[in-house]
Amino acid sequence: MDTLKVIKIGGNVIDNPEALEAFLGMFAAIPGAKILVHGGGAIASRTLLRMGIEPKMIEGRRVTDAETLQVVTAVYAGLINKSIVATLQKNGCNAIGLSGADGNAITSRKRPAAPVDYGFVGDIEKVNAKTFEALLAAGMTPVVCAINHDGCGTLLNTNADTIASGIATAMSGTYPTELIMCFEKDGVLMDKDDNSSVIEQIDKPLFEKLKAEGKVNAGMLPKLKNAFDAIDAGVKKVVIKNSARLSDGSGTVIF
Amino acid sequence: MDTLKVIKIGGNVIDNPEALEAFLGMFAAIPGAKILVHGGGAIASRTLLRMGIEPKMIEGRRVTDAETLQVVTAVYAGLINKSIVATLQKNGCNAIGLSGADGNAITSRKRPAAPVDYGFVGDIEKVNAKTFEALLAAGMTPVVCAINHDGCGTLLNTNADTIASGIATAMSGTYPTELIMCFEKDGVLMDKDDNSSVIEQIDKPLFEKLKAEGKVNAGMLPKLKNAFDAIDAGVKKVVIKNSARLSDGSGTVIF
Repeated sequence: MDTLKVIKIGGNVIDNPEALEAFLGMFAAIPGAKILVHGGGAIASRTLLRMGIEPKMIEGRRVTDAETLQVVTAVYAGLINKSIVATLQKNGCNAIGLSGADGNAITSRKRPAAPVDYGFVGDIEKVNAKTFEALLAAGMTPVVCAINHDGCGTLLNTNADTIASGIATAMSGTYPTELIMCFEKDGVLMDKDDNSSVIEQIDKPLFEKLKAEGKVNAGMLPKLKNAFDAIDAGVKKVVIKNSARLSDGSGTVIF
Repeated sequence: MDTLKVIKIGGNVIDNPEALEAFLGMFAAIPGAKILVHGGGAIASRTLLRMGIEPKMIEGRRVTDAETLQVVTAVYAGLINKSIVATLQKNGCNAIGLSGADGNAITSRKRPAAPVDYGFVGDIEKVNAKTFEALLAAGMTPVVCAINHDGCGTLLNTNADTIASGIATAMSGTYPTELIMCFEKDGVLMDKDDNSSVIEQIDKPLFEKLKAEGKVNAGMLPKLKNAFDAIDAGVKKVVIKNSARLSDGSGTVIF
């Protein structure tokens, strides 16, 4: 069976219309089965402010009260998701936008209110591989936002990196699966201020060594942890790379 | 082949959480293939006002400038669509939300700017029956909002009644199809102020007679015209009925 690519983009490309257009052109041109997962960028925060709602963050994570959930659902699953889908269609890619509620694709459990009450934030319970398989088999390309549901009628907000890695893990039971995490740098950097210092490959021993030597910066640690979790769970490889360089062989391969 | 039911709900039920919950419970319980089409109700106008954008209407139709398009896309395809999908999932119905861009389900053409410039408003060009067939075959129930696309990357806003009748017409090539248009009255009324004066059946000769006698009120005329257009195009029957009475045999049957 051909390889399935699960590709995640975040705020740096979503907040820049030209970069997003260029990225989606490259994404559409990738042959074979693929799934796109997108974050929400700063658009949700700007929309909240414009509606007179103060965005609340605790340690970089959004606190999602009932009103904020309505806005992020509108922005992620509506505005951003449908703009991406329409642009992919223009590029000849038969995209279909999904929240986790659609086709019961992803169920999650509301995070406990203690020690920190993040509100309507979910931790993934199950990715329904059959839904994705049915859409892929019908020649469609799922485009997934970070909104999902608890199966009891409540929508929940989840980190998009976690959604991407959850989908890749679940799909690795059916397809040889690659997870491609795009961000604004060319890969995992030896020197975080030098974009040419990309580490081409990282296996677990090297990761442990880099960690022990303090050479992995704080922002990259959860991404790498996420990547190795996916590898441990059956994903063939994880690539961390620049969204502007989707089509070339650049980036850091985690295996 | 079993009958496909295309059911449309509008603002009267979407704006009332209890009525919507009750309606979706009844909808979920309908056996067999079905498609739900929903309008946006007053939520879009309230959201526009809260964002400091004055809603513009000409003869009851929304003028959709670029900023308004973003808001209605967020509200219809995001907030309302995903709330409906999550509630249907809770009720055991495997719903999947769609705009016309998703799976290239519905393409439309931007309405000419003369004589009235409605902005990003589309007239249906093509309903892609294959997309709906693939989803129904996979055991999913499409839930469609009134946002669609031109195939060139632009999202467009279309009247939800038109979307429902366009879908029913396109699907009648494959399935015996019924179109059920729900609103706040018990059917087409002989006396618009008397909810017990429902006309049980209307065929074309009766429609012409009622029209000639001035017995069809202005608000009902486009609905009936829409219904007969669908019948002429192959839809088996059209039922105009109360969304609160989805499950019973009430309403007006157009044939």
